[in-house]
Amino acid sequence: MEAKRLGILGGLGPMSTFYFCELLTAHTRAEKDCDHIDMIISSCASTPDRTAFILGESDADPLPAMLREAHRLESAGADLIVIPCNTAHYFYDGLTRECRTPILNIIRETVDELYTAGVRRIGLLATAGTVRSGAYRRVCDEYGMDCLIPDEEQQAVITSLIYDRIKQNKSVDLQAFLRVAEALRDRGCEKLVLGCTELSLLKKQGLDERVFVDSLEILAKKTILSCGKEPIGFGSSSLFREGVQR
Amino acid sequence: MEAKRLGILGGLGPMSTFYFCELLTAHTRAEKDCDHIDMIISSCASTPDRTAFILGESDADPLPAMLREAHRLESAGADLIVIPCNTAHYFYDGLTRECRTPILNIIRETVDELYTAGVRRIGLLATAGTVRSGAYRRVCDEYGMDCLIPDEEQQAVITSLIYDRIKQNKSVDLQAFLRVAEALRDRGCEKLVLGCTELSLLKKQGLDERVFVDSLEILAKKTILSCGKEPIGFGSSSLFREGVQR
Repeated sequence: MEAKRLGILGGLGPMSTFYFCELLTAHTRAEKDCDHIDMIISSCASTPDRTAFILGESDADPLPAMLREAHRLESAGADLIVIPCNTAHYFYDGLTRECRTPILNIIRETVDELYTAGVRRIGLLATAGTVRSGAYRRVCDEYGMDCLIPDEEQQAVITSLIYDRIKQNKSVDLQAFLRVAEALRDRGCEKLVLGCTELSLLKKQGLDERVFVDSLEILAKKTILSCGKEPIGFGSSSLFREGVQR
Repeated sequence: MEAKRLGILGGLGPMSTFYFCELLTAHTRAEKDCDHIDMIISSCASTPDRTAFILGESDADPLPAMLREAHRLESAGADLIVIPCNTAHYFYDGLTRECRTPILNIIRETVDELYTAGVRRIGLLATAGTVRSGAYRRVCDEYGMDCLIPDEEQQAVITSLIYDRIKQNKSVDLQAFLRVAEALRDRGCEKLVLGCTELSLLKKQGLDERVFVDSLEILAKKTILSCGKEPIGFGSSSLFREGVQR
């Protein structure tokens, strides 16, 4: 497969964008710089808040800024675009309608990977925007899978964790997070999806890889494959086998 | 100061590019995503090897690729360009001649910061390309400062560390590195400059901040200031005072 120039529509938020770039770099088989993927990244931090718009708390529509940046990536020669942010996929259809460049869909790739691994009931840990938009549920419906979400009180814990702690580079109460996760497990979820790239950063603090599945890692693996490179070392999760391309 | 759109000429190598982006993000005063710097990053990993060209081991000139990417950043609206790679600054004059956008110079910023802090003799830890090009020595000469470099055998240790270990995501023999550093200290160097962004990654393993000065951190601080944002939390090094703008 010919090597592709990757476009990353980022800044949603900035830290998880660069964490995703590091994931791509750490998990691409490479002996020297030039074995890595050529990429162009727009980290447009000033994009209006996605969750606030989805929940109707703000009328600043982020789609125009996202479209402008997507076109910037196209003009800069991107052959493929990825968006390392689950919430922003609310605007996926609006983006694909206006862009000629293919855009990988983190939600579809994640659900597809889980379905292929035999999972039939997932729990979703994500922003209120992603949860209420029903983006995961709709794709799960297509696959005949269950998608469970936290109750309102539990969701408030997750939302606060994302917006008041992680996005502000502050320390995190991991126990509060794990209590929400445990409640979803008690309702029969086989796997819990880290469906927000800010939550992916929690893995650095140690989460059980047998339970938690990181949508950002799945997107990274699919991106590396799509760019004609070989993905390596995707953890010990049963979903991944090192160096094996599906 | 008006917020600026930053262009990052990266991929030289990729991992240190994203580490630099993380540095910028972690050290910008921000309460929400949109407080961060808007940036566009070209991580062109396929750029021909800089050190090999500088040392005459390869005739693949990286300047044309670097110029093409710099122009890509300009077309994408960059108001200011930075290059998070010391070695690539061998091509700095060639780039500034052809670009209309100002480019911060990591070497000049580092030497200037050290001079202002009262340092008069530095030791340089960098690629053979940076060392032999004399880029640091020339700027130090302008400031009336001494710039000492490792002997040939010691330089081979540093070169191997950068190319055979860090760039390949392999574990590092920190003791071998520290022996080279100690030899420079014995020759009277007040501060040792991590003059290669791959070496900046070693800080994660714990280096004495009273001795080692990271050129990448200095570039990050200057970049944040130049983009009209407030830098925060630049370590306990005597060179930095948190939140104080010079």
